[in-house]
Amino acid sequence: MSDRGRGVTFARGFTAGAAMAGVKTGRSERLDVALIVSDRPCAAAGVFTQNTVIAAPCLVTRKHLQSGALRAIVVNSGNANATTGAQGERDAEAMAAAAAEKLGIAANEVGVASTGVIGVPLPIDRVKAGLAKVEPTVAGWDDASRAIMTTDTKPKVAEREVAIGQGIVRIGGICKGAGMIHPDMATMLAFVTTDAKIEAAALREMLTDAARDTFNAVSVDGDTSTNDTLLILANGASGIAVEPSDRERFVGVLTQVCEDLARMIVADGEGATKVFEVVVRGARSDEDARRAARTVTTSNLVKTAIHGADPNWGRILAAAGRSGAFVDAGRASVTVGDIVVFKAGTPQKPDLDAVRRVFSEPQIAIDIDLGVGNGKARAWGCDLSAEYVHINADYTT
Amino acid sequence: MSDRGRGVTFARGFTAGAAMAGVKTGRSERLDVALIVSDRPCAAAGVFTQNTVIAAPCLVTRKHLQSGALRAIVVNSGNANATTGAQGERDAEAMAAAAAEKLGIAANEVGVASTGVIGVPLPIDRVKAGLAKVEPTVAGWDDASRAIMTTDTKPKVAEREVAIGQGIVRIGGICKGAGMIHPDMATMLAFVTTDAKIEAAALREMLTDAARDTFNAVSVDGDTSTNDTLLILANGASGIAVEPSDRERFVGVLTQVCEDLARMIVADGEGATKVFEVVVRGARSDEDARRAARTVTTSNLVKTAIHGADPNWGRILAAAGRSGAFVDAGRASVTVGDIVVFKAGTPQKPDLDAVRRVFSEPQIAIDIDLGVGNGKARAWGCDLSAEYVHINADYTT
Repeated sequence: MSDRGRGVTFARGFTAGAAMAGVKTGRSERLDVALIVSDRPCAAAGVFTQNTVIAAPCLVTRKHLQSGALRAIVVNSGNANATTGAQGERDAEAMAAAAAEKLGIAANEVGVASTGVIGVPLPIDRVKAGLAKVEPTVAGWDDASRAIMTTDTKPKVAEREVAIGQGIVRIGGICKGAGMIHPDMATMLAFVTTDAKIEAAALREMLTDAARDTFNAVSVDGDTSTNDTLLILANGASGIAVEPSDRERFVGVLTQVCEDLARMIVADGEGATKVFEVVVRGARSDEDARRAARTVTTSNLVKTAIHGADPNWGRILAAAGRSGAFVDAGRASVTVGDIVVFKAGTPQKPDLDAVRRVFSEPQIAIDIDLGVGNGKARAWGCDLSAEYVHINADYTT
Repeated sequence: MSDRGRGVTFARGFTAGAAMAGVKTGRSERLDVALIVSDRPCAAAGVFTQNTVIAAPCLVTRKHLQSGALRAIVVNSGNANATTGAQGERDAEAMAAAAAEKLGIAANEVGVASTGVIGVPLPIDRVKAGLAKVEPTVAGWDDASRAIMTTDTKPKVAEREVAIGQGIVRIGGICKGAGMIHPDMATMLAFVTTDAKIEAAALREMLTDAARDTFNAVSVDGDTSTNDTLLILANGASGIAVEPSDRERFVGVLTQVCEDLARMIVADGEGATKVFEVVVRGARSDEDARRAARTVTTSNLVKTAIHGADPNWGRILAAAGRSGAFVDAGRASVTVGDIVVFKAGTPQKPDLDAVRRVFSEPQIAIDIDLGVGNGKARAWGCDLSAEYVHINADYTT
């Protein structure tokens, strides 16, 4: 990861800023309205929640993205504007319109995102009043990264450079944690900017590719919140176009930025004290491998065992077995850290104290070889702590 | 529920008993090997885990059930004999053989079940030594109900009578909690006996029907442990045959017994302090309704909100929305206790203190009308507490 900082304003031509609008109450981090702005039109693409109960800002942003172009993103935290009915859609449109008016652009050039409590009408007047106070600058990336936080304990920022043709293009982003990424993913928001020149259709494809093994590997397909949003804006300010022959390199670095951000989300999972990476190999297909890896990372039994450094490794295989992936326990192998606990169907009677030591580390590697094919995937999870319960048992109040 | 007690020995011709075999270590409840025996051959049927990583005792019992007849069930707690490879199957067969030898019956007349830590070889010598000490009696139902417990805080026993033709037949059962029924269901074991005379094929059908909206509504299809087992033995000791015309009545009472037991499992969920019932109506199909109801009962966000009496009711609709059921938020309604919080797509701005009061009750009713059809289902869940984490972070040790 670059040490340059700046996240969404790392790419040239972007500014950002935030203000306190009084939507996010009872939290220590009070910035709660953010703007990300390009100085020129951008190609834009998005990936949204697969929840069929989709929040108003996602509906509005999807509509605005039909042109393949955006110039700004407006975000609020503290209220998700979800399950808020027709009024919710009017409020999301009003948020876009207020940002557009402020910036002197069209309302359909603005993407909208919200995160926070659901089922409560958005206090749109407060959002608009807060928005009026935002002054986007290159230095405003930090405020923007804080304004989108809910139960996150720290802002999440990443950026990388990639050499394309004769020059260097920049990619940067910010995101907010899916506090309870596992298994409910209470709203992951991620915003990525680049000064590369890319047409919208190609951008959409590349974003989908980059999300699949990063953000979507810390959430679970079909197991998402009402508001999950990943947006990318490409403004071409570098003057460098990403040609078809450059795409693989560009998408590789875009994927790295997304992985950096996704890992920060896991590490900052609500109440999380440890992160674990699950690699599934030898599956019948990549899709099967993904299914197994994600089920292991979302198993409450695996998550609590890791939390307590309980060497109950059998839970790992049991979780894979209920994932829907093809699992033949007689051919599977499981390795925890560097300890083979189960090999080709036979338990290896591992030293439980050694397994306990592996589970005591802040980063834990779990490798599952299903032994039935060549499919492979990775997923990341965090432990489940009593602190998670405390946070989520008292979210509204 | 009858107040007669006796569970598995309520039906005539059955005895039960248990002993301490030293398999279950570090728990206050030390009985850990149980026998349930009929004085004559029985028709028998079973329902097993859908996890593709299936434990050895389930494999062995399924094989023994191919004849449609059993005469005894042997159970141990403390070790699940799961993910234990070929040795595990030999151990499960040895358990059946030891019980058979003790009782003077054939090994394939014995059903086997195990629950406890997975991935650790079964200490078969201890199990056999414990088994030798068991003396099945009519009074032994209580010991048997305790010997199958793991993290359960109390034994679970139910029984009912049903009038068939000129007489009364009896149905009784015991079960052990699926500690972490949500979402991983760490082994639910349930054993039901009846003195009705029923042929095996009919018994199998009736058991499947009874399980669908009871035990399977507190677990989740495809989301089960390696060992889940529900067995029924029908020994005909009442002299009363269940004719085709009696089946509906019999299955109704059998379902009641299963529901009694399933509700005890939820109420005794690990760390649970409250139980909630989710009714989904107006779904496109019963299957869709089941999917939505079960997803709501397994949502960590819903479970923690209920634990903390946090009136964050939007999480209920969000969980239904990611269930895979067809949900149109514009047509859905949600009622919590007697408070309509969301009606036909519009939030009702309910009094949050009133919602908080509903969520503070020990029993909570949640009603979701999807407004798109006639499908209906119920499911039961329990809250997620910090205590759940404590229990499961330190299970092995």
